[in-house]
Amino acid sequence: MGAAFTCLADFRAILADLPGPFAAATADATARNGQLTKPPGALGQLEDLAIWYAGWRGDARPSITSPQVVIFAGNHGVTAQGVSAFPAEVTEQMVLNFQAGGAAINQLSACFGAKMQVVALDLATPTADFTLAPAMSEDDVVAALQAGWDAVDPSADVLVTGEMGIGNTTVAAAIANAVFGGEAEDWVGRGTGVDDAGLALKADVVRRGLARHVAVLDDPLEVLRCLGGRELAAMAGAILRARCLRIPVVLDGFICTAAASVLARAEKGALDHCVAGHVSAESAHGRMLEKLGKAPLLSLGLRLGEGSGGALAIGVLKGAVACHSGMASFAEAGVSDS
Amino acid sequence: MGAAFTCLADFRAILADLPGPFAAATADATARNGQLTKPPGALGQLEDLAIWYAGWRGDARPSITSPQVVIFAGNHGVTAQGVSAFPAEVTEQMVLNFQAGGAAINQLSACFGAKMQVVALDLATPTADFTLAPAMSEDDVVAALQAGWDAVDPSADVLVTGEMGIGNTTVAAAIANAVFGGEAEDWVGRGTGVDDAGLALKADVVRRGLARHVAVLDDPLEVLRCLGGRELAAMAGAILRARCLRIPVVLDGFICTAAASVLARAEKGALDHCVAGHVSAESAHGRMLEKLGKAPLLSLGLRLGEGSGGALAIGVLKGAVACHSGMASFAEAGVSDS
Repeated sequence: MGAAFTCLADFRAILADLPGPFAAATADATARNGQLTKPPGALGQLEDLAIWYAGWRGDARPSITSPQVVIFAGNHGVTAQGVSAFPAEVTEQMVLNFQAGGAAINQLSACFGAKMQVVALDLATPTADFTLAPAMSEDDVVAALQAGWDAVDPSADVLVTGEMGIGNTTVAAAIANAVFGGEAEDWVGRGTGVDDAGLALKADVVRRGLARHVAVLDDPLEVLRCLGGRELAAMAGAILRARCLRIPVVLDGFICTAAASVLARAEKGALDHCVAGHVSAESAHGRMLEKLGKAPLLSLGLRLGEGSGGALAIGVLKGAVACHSGMASFAEAGVSDS
Repeated sequence: MGAAFTCLADFRAILADLPGPFAAATADATARNGQLTKPPGALGQLEDLAIWYAGWRGDARPSITSPQVVIFAGNHGVTAQGVSAFPAEVTEQMVLNFQAGGAAINQLSACFGAKMQVVALDLATPTADFTLAPAMSEDDVVAALQAGWDAVDPSADVLVTGEMGIGNTTVAAAIANAVFGGEAEDWVGRGTGVDDAGLALKADVVRRGLARHVAVLDDPLEVLRCLGGRELAAMAGAILRARCLRIPVVLDGFICTAAASVLARAEKGALDHCVAGHVSAESAHGRMLEKLGKAPLLSLGLRLGEGSGGALAIGVLKGAVACHSGMASFAEAGVSDS
């Protein structure tokens, strides 16, 4: 899988030929679930989650021992429009904080036994302001997709992609608007904490971005390039690589889901190996998940990014898989099954 | 705390003199939360959860290393009315399954680092059918409360109480109806899987139970005695003991919450040391949590009991506390705070 990509067409080819889950493992896991010592359906979503996981891993009785969390960081020319409550240098400061172990995602990764790494993407060279020009050239977006692709550990058994990038809720809103339609106001939110005027500004910036790039709005990979964000492209690349490796992905919040949406729009079913870890307090995230047909595992009002909601949901996934693989059957336990 | 109880009045005295959280730790944890490297409020409910936990532990930067899960099992005379989809012998069979490590709660306890134990309460002697007589004598209910009280490990830093008892959703519905009012239909549900006729029967059984014990419905501890269930009384005793030890409790589902409701009704604020781990698929659980003013951490359609939803929520609580206690401050990390 050591692919080296040279153009977006390389990714289009991969998207057109995605592997699915292992049907036999899905069937075997479904049968096993029906024999476990509990009333039918009593573990609710945990049952569906375990069967889904088993199918992707090709193992009717899987375990989770090697979760991976990768955080991609990028800077955005669109911050020149004043769309964030924090200055752009915070992106790099937070990268240092991730490396030093001081951020929320460090604690959550450790808590749920995940290896965590951070990939800083050309922080000294922000992408172009998408209201004025394409955020990235084709070489730029391919390099970012490649960085995501390369970051995935083939031995991981679940992947969370996180991000850091001052200004990237505006980028994500623009991508969501391009991918799902509707009005700019449907997709912008308060991010790290802008006021009403900031919110109106974000909607205006998104509207101008889409107007400038109206010619490419039907092409999801071109949307990613023009509205961009290197960390969003890298997340898309990582999620795609995980699909090729049949590594289940726990999606994080608004930015991560916007990046993933590009894949879903480019190829129906491209996110079948993904589960929504949580629904964010960023108002449009729930709408985005509905469009994708993904029910979130958690709803705790998080709006931090970094992969924090995804990492927290690893706990739920681990619990689901532990029950599925560790429980006794009615026959094994000598329990009457009704 | 090695109390030996002889009558319900002993518990009334404890309920009248409950300790609260440590105000200084709550204040210090609140201040700490405001300095951590994240936008204000970006960790949502996790922030409130960590501050709440810190207050009860008397430590502004706590850790969770010793969760305890205790499952209480009991049998119910009211099963003679045909209220369950499973035969009563399943209670004892499941106790053996807990002891052998084969149940869902075994896997979830291991997954989140909790010590688990099971306390079987006189399974060979079911409580009386509450439609015909008080479920328990005063000696019986005091013994069950005492069993719960004694089961709590004083060195635990979080407690989940679970239960097993064929027929106990009917018992819990009767208690909820007595404690919160309304109609029997508001509180009965499908339990392990009864059909429409079974559901109507459960409502009728609850109605007859309340009619028989109408004289005591204003006295929560008498409600517990007459509508009963040893495992519910034991859970109430354990939750009360945890309060006296300032050990935070993660409530499980419908049965556990019904048991806890007795304490809340007996003394306002008696569940301030408790958080709702999840909202069950058992339809009345959400209504019960609303009455108690508790927002659930998880909503995953579980309806298993055993403490399963509470144990799963230990993961969320651990994540919250790990973030709170492990994150760097803006000053420590050299991150601009806006």
